Amino acid sequence: LTTQRLEAFSDGVFAVAITLLAFELRLPSLPPNIDDSELYRALLALAPRFYSYLVSFVLVGMFWVAHHNIFVAIERPDRPLMWMNLVTLLWVCLLPFSATTLGAYPGLRSAAIFYGLNLMLIGQSLFWMWRYACHRRFILQDLGPELIRMINRKILLGSPLYAAGIAAAFWDPRISSTIYVMAILVYILPSKLDRHLRTHGDSR
Amino acid sequence: LTTQRLEAFSDGVFAVAITLLAFELRLPSLPPNIDDSELYRALLALAPRFYSYLVSFVLVGMFWVAHHNIFVAIERPDRPLMWMNLVTLLWVCLLPFSATTLGAYPGLRSAAIFYGLNLMLIGQSLFWMWRYACHRRFILQDLGPELIRMINRKILLGSPLYAAGIAAAFWDPRISSTIYVMAILVYILPSKLDRHLRTHGDSR
Amino acid sequence: LTTQRLEAFSDGVFAVAITLLAFELRLPSLPPNIDDSELYRALLALAPRFYSYLVSFVLVGMFWVAHHNIFVAIERPDRPLMWMNLVTLLWVCLLPFSATTLGAYPGLRSAAIFYGLNLMLIGQSLFWMWRYACHRRFILQDLGPELIRMINRKILLGSPLYAAGIAAAFWDPRISSTIYVMAILVYILPSKLDRHLRTHGDSR
Amino acid sequence: LTTQRLEAFSDGVFAVAITLLAFELRLPSLPPNIDDSELYRALLALAPRFYSYLVSFVLVGMFWVAHHNIFVAIERPDRPLMWMNLVTLLWVCLLPFSATTLGAYPGLRSAAIFYGLNLMLIGQSLFWMWRYACHRRFILQDLGPELIRMINRKILLGSPLYAAGIAAAFWDPRISSTIYVMAILVYILPSKLDRHLRTHGDSR
Repeated sequence: LTTQRLEAFSDGVFAVAITLLAFELRLPSLPPNIDDSELYRALLALAPRFYSYLVSFVLVGMFWVAHHNIFVAIERPDRPLMWMNLVTLLWVCLLPFSATTLGAYPGLRSAAIFYGLNLMLIGQSLFWMWRYACHRRFILQDLGPELIRMINRKILLGSPLYAAGIAAAFWDPRISSTIYVMAILVYILPSKLDRHLRTHGDSR
Repeated sequence: LTTQRLEAFSDGVFAVAITLLAFELRLPSLPPNIDDSELYRALLALAPRFYSYLVSFVLVGMFWVAHHNIFVAIERPDRPLMWMNLVTLLWVCLLPFSATTLGAYPGLRSAAIFYGLNLMLIGQSLFWMWRYACHRRFILQDLGPELIRMINRKILLGSPLYAAGIAAAFWDPRISSTIYVMAILVYILPSKLDRHLRTHGDSR
Repeated sequence: LTTQRLEAFSDGVFAVAITLLAFELRLPSLPPNIDDSELYRALLALAPRFYSYLVSFVLVGMFWVAHHNIFVAIERPDRPLMWMNLVTLLWVCLLPFSATTLGAYPGLRSAAIFYGLNLMLIGQSLFWMWRYACHRRFILQDLGPELIRMINRKILLGSPLYAAGIAAAFWDPRISSTIYVMAILVYILPSKLDRHLRTHGDSR
Repeated sequence: LTTQRLEAFSDGVFAVAITLLAFELRLPSLPPNIDDSELYRALLALAPRFYSYLVSFVLVGMFWVAHHNIFVAIERPDRPLMWMNLVTLLWVCLLPFSATTLGAYPGLRSAAIFYGLNLMLIGQSLFWMWRYACHRRFILQDLGPELIRMINRKILLGSPLYAAGIAAAFWDPRISSTIYVMAILVYILPSKLDRHLRTHGDSR
């Protein structure tokens, strides 16, 4: 099994999943002769769905970057890794459904928990794929133990956030959404890892 | 016709088909002001569809791996092989429909038979593509007759399982689903073929 | 503009369009507690849509092969060719809509004409793209004038068939469908072109 | 992060988004036994949606070409550029929704403004991505300052047009649509940039 075709297939799945997020943005079936203020109100009523779209889009993009980073370090995938990758994609493809549910019912506990569980399943799949790659020593020789520890920490960082989001849903589902957005900030802000990579001239 | 673009196109089709499986997971049209327990019940009512999604996702992933393995062995596709590939993709693209039908009516015989027929059509298309590739000697020189026999056996293994699933539907459609899941186990579990490849240092 | 990324983008569009053909196969909204014979009848009622799916899938596959063959001969696309490619893809992406309309109303003249016009627009776009490539001499040096004439003839063959299909719709729309299927046979059957390529050891 | 996989992912997203534009073309739910004139009228009633499809398809194609041109000049993307790319794709994926809204309500001000804002967000994202690439000197050595200035001007040209389209919507939404089509002409017509590239033997 070559890394190249596994990456091409995974990229395709990520690309379709991320595009389908927007596909769930739909106007309710309105009569064809509505006036401007009615369309304006209908667009405004979609605001929580737009919000869910924005957050989910950036989260899927984030997971794609993590997936990409893991595969840069894998020279030659084996069968177990291929199945772990498939499981990761399985949860990624479920996110448009979770995002639509959260966008439709942003104030309901089940929606916030379902969304948080989905994020956690993606994050955990990516983490175990990375652990397996480290364990089987597929990883490139030039990744030192310090760099591997940094990547471990960065990947692990997401799960407590998702867990906090799920827990917060029992108190107020709207706090969950705020916590899920925080996960984005953790990954967007330049980190120790980026500084390490920059000073060591490594493009990953 | 180059193998590279044929693979890129096939990967694209597999990626879209596998992502569309999840796209069929939809909440029924509920009023916007439902409470938490109603959403919870609606999500729970989707359980057979989630199950169908999980099984179908792994099956499509399995067929993708088989497709990949066949094309690794093909150096230069010709026109008949290209059409055989197209027929294979035709049945792969039908699986989201079959999976949705089975997810919506898991207890109905027609749904279980339709799904089983679809699996068998994919499996048979892949098998005949592989036979044709062997016959026309497109295959790489380093595949010995023993390895080819092992791959034959592995590809052929699916069809009796799908046939058993179809037959079981006449007795109880729920047994069919169990048999289709067994097909996954056959391909996930490490086999004689994997051991052969590992000991001979071949990454396929 | 590199050929490689233009091909990757076109492959992606073809892959999504061909997969969406099946996505239009949908069961009508049935009550959840229907019995087996009702599902069986619903599946049977989809027969004209299945037929439209099969034919359209193979036609899109055929156009993809033609697209591929044209781009093998193009070493360096320029801006006009890029726009001609975009126009071709525009008509390809419309085919799922035409196919759904024909599948839903196989006996209606407008459906058969719309479908035929769509096929002709794709065929003509491909033909003019090929003519432009020949005219601007992007084509590889090793394509002799005889081979170019053969490819011209093969690409041109489709249009009279589509025109005949459109004309036949005014008499009986079901004859149109038969004529559209004949277009497939023209391209599937091994031709003088294939023999020429085989004897000259050219993989295209 | 390698340019190759970032391009493959972006191509996938563009390809899915552009294909989904056509997916929004749908016949209203008609009874199965309508006659030919009724289907003809239903197809004719979709005319504004076809128009919106054609314009949006070419616009997305145009943005894809701009995206491609920017990435040809980037040798090694970094994390900020990757996030800027993700934001660009986020707005691209929203265009099928905007196009559907404009196609459904071509005479309403909100629809024309929403569509224009979406175009401007895509155009601006592309512009800032290009500015960042220039600023960080990722760009290839052989792009002289004159060429960079030309590309700047070409990319910037879109925004005043989109702004004019949005402003015109307050007067008459149908003028907006005309202005959006003008943006296509600006990019299709051969420009000073094309002449420069041709005379300097650069394929970009």
